[in-house]
Amino acid sequence: MILIDIINVLKESKKVIIMPHVSVDGDGLGSSLALGLALEKIGTSVKVWLEEDIPSVYSFLPGSYLVKVYKGESDLSCECIGTAVALDAGDLPRLGKRVEIFNNAEITINIDHHSTNDEFAKYNFVNTNASSVGEILYQLIKMMGIEFDMDIATCLYVAISTDTGGFRYSNTTSVTHQIAGDLLNSGVNVAEISQKIFDTVSYEKVMLMRAAINSLELFENGKVAFITISDDVMKSTGAKEEECDGIVNIGRNVKGVEVAVMIRTRNDGEVKVNLRSNSYVDVSEIAKLYSGGGHKRAAGCTVKGNIEEIKSKLLGDIRKVL
Amino acid sequence: MILIDIINVLKESKKVIIMPHVSVDGDGLGSSLALGLALEKIGTSVKVWLEEDIPSVYSFLPGSYLVKVYKGESDLSCECIGTAVALDAGDLPRLGKRVEIFNNAEITINIDHHSTNDEFAKYNFVNTNASSVGEILYQLIKMMGIEFDMDIATCLYVAISTDTGGFRYSNTTSVTHQIAGDLLNSGVNVAEISQKIFDTVSYEKVMLMRAAINSLELFENGKVAFITISDDVMKSTGAKEEECDGIVNIGRNVKGVEVAVMIRTRNDGEVKVNLRSNSYVDVSEIAKLYSGGGHKRAAGCTVKGNIEEIKSKLLGDIRKVL
Repeated sequence: MILIDIINVLKESKKVIIMPHVSVDGDGLGSSLALGLALEKIGTSVKVWLEEDIPSVYSFLPGSYLVKVYKGESDLSCECIGTAVALDAGDLPRLGKRVEIFNNAEITINIDHHSTNDEFAKYNFVNTNASSVGEILYQLIKMMGIEFDMDIATCLYVAISTDTGGFRYSNTTSVTHQIAGDLLNSGVNVAEISQKIFDTVSYEKVMLMRAAINSLELFENGKVAFITISDDVMKSTGAKEEECDGIVNIGRNVKGVEVAVMIRTRNDGEVKVNLRSNSYVDVSEIAKLYSGGGHKRAAGCTVKGNIEEIKSKLLGDIRKVL
Repeated sequence: MILIDIINVLKESKKVIIMPHVSVDGDGLGSSLALGLALEKIGTSVKVWLEEDIPSVYSFLPGSYLVKVYKGESDLSCECIGTAVALDAGDLPRLGKRVEIFNNAEITINIDHHSTNDEFAKYNFVNTNASSVGEILYQLIKMMGIEFDMDIATCLYVAISTDTGGFRYSNTTSVTHQIAGDLLNSGVNVAEISQKIFDTVSYEKVMLMRAAINSLELFENGKVAFITISDDVMKSTGAKEEECDGIVNIGRNVKGVEVAVMIRTRNDGEVKVNLRSNSYVDVSEIAKLYSGGGHKRAAGCTVKGNIEEIKSKLLGDIRKVL
């Protein structure tokens, strides 16, 4: 499928429903809002359906008036839905409950950058070289001849910068920077946005970070870092479960550390393990030993049992590949 | 002065000494090494003189074999020095002891991006629109017709990305991104470099961060954050003085905070105060009350006295402008 076919379908669609994946992130939401705002400019009736509320970190994004949270209440006749566009979703289950909307749409479109995408729509465009769906939509909106404004540019900038970790991940390419540069020309406020999406943390998260540092243990001459977070810690800090995201990096970022482990213990005996490595250890191999999975540098698994025994076994497994 | 004049002087120089400012940072060092490596490619004899050792965070930079730390031992005859190039230095005192080298050079060049630059050399090129000297040197090396390789590109990438806080500060422009994009085409390893320059911290710094969070106090409904670091804390964590850099941001990044204060108390009674604001408070005005100075969003001052009295007085001053 080439982009021009999708553009032609979008140009002919009077009604468009846009849906990013569940647990929406910066790329999913930024891309959805950018496409919504762009299509509105050419007179299309647009809605962005989310599985859950807009995450508070992205509440500043322009175009949030387009958003509806799906609770099964929509009229599912296909004339009413028109064209449904899935963004940043590798397969249909990633649309959660909103798969009902997608399945009832007159025309379906799937735009994504994941190599695992199973091309579930009538019209599919998957570019695995793109850092983000934002990068694909930049080109799509340009090709549609829709003029960029600060709002569209801001949404795309957030999409691209969050999915590249602020132009720091290995998916950042020359094209990523060229697009970001062009978006700045539309008036994106880089400093303000960066502070909001990368730096600002809740007081509770700061307390969680302190608890994480308190629990930090180094092994194997500082090559392995363990951080442990219990239900009691979560309760005393007041942090939300999603604020555990990235806590493993406190260990990973300590100079000399190759493998970082974040162990989230629950009172019910379940133990969630997050693994990260810096240079050479394939942590997905370790996760596989516990029926988990992931990538070379980021993996995870869920186990049950005595926490000290789990730690000791994990450390033994890591020691073998250090 | 236009860049082509400086290019002509550099092309005719058989010997070039390059000097960034004292307490060299990523832009100063990256720019110096990039220019050194580029000039070597056209047969120039190059040395990069530093005031102090290469900071360990930048020890991975290519071209470090060009570096000498100045201890006053160099032959100061002008034929021996040849052309001296000051980089990223607003005035002569920013060259520290190496001003001796600069003053004895046959020809002097000053390339900078600070608006306060007093054009102290024979040939001066100051571009205040450039995010970094790295951005200026990218153009200079291109105009000289010297081919970029991975080493030169890596040095320039580090120069530009550090001076823009990883493309997050307001000095980041469309041109900054375009240049970064082009540098990636020369094989810069974005993920590895970003991890090294932005994420990696010493174990001692992690302990300092914990102590900082332990001391975190919020006032005025969470709009003001105070962090206090004493000599005792520095001793118990083992952190170096320069690792206090950025600690004030722990307070600044807490959601809802407008003014963050980092107070570094010393056993001799001296108190160093760092001030940051997020949106509207001009902290340089507060610093001025204590004979300090700085910018609207980042300022500082040094005071003496009882720590509780200082905190209470500072809080009173901040309250007036909240």
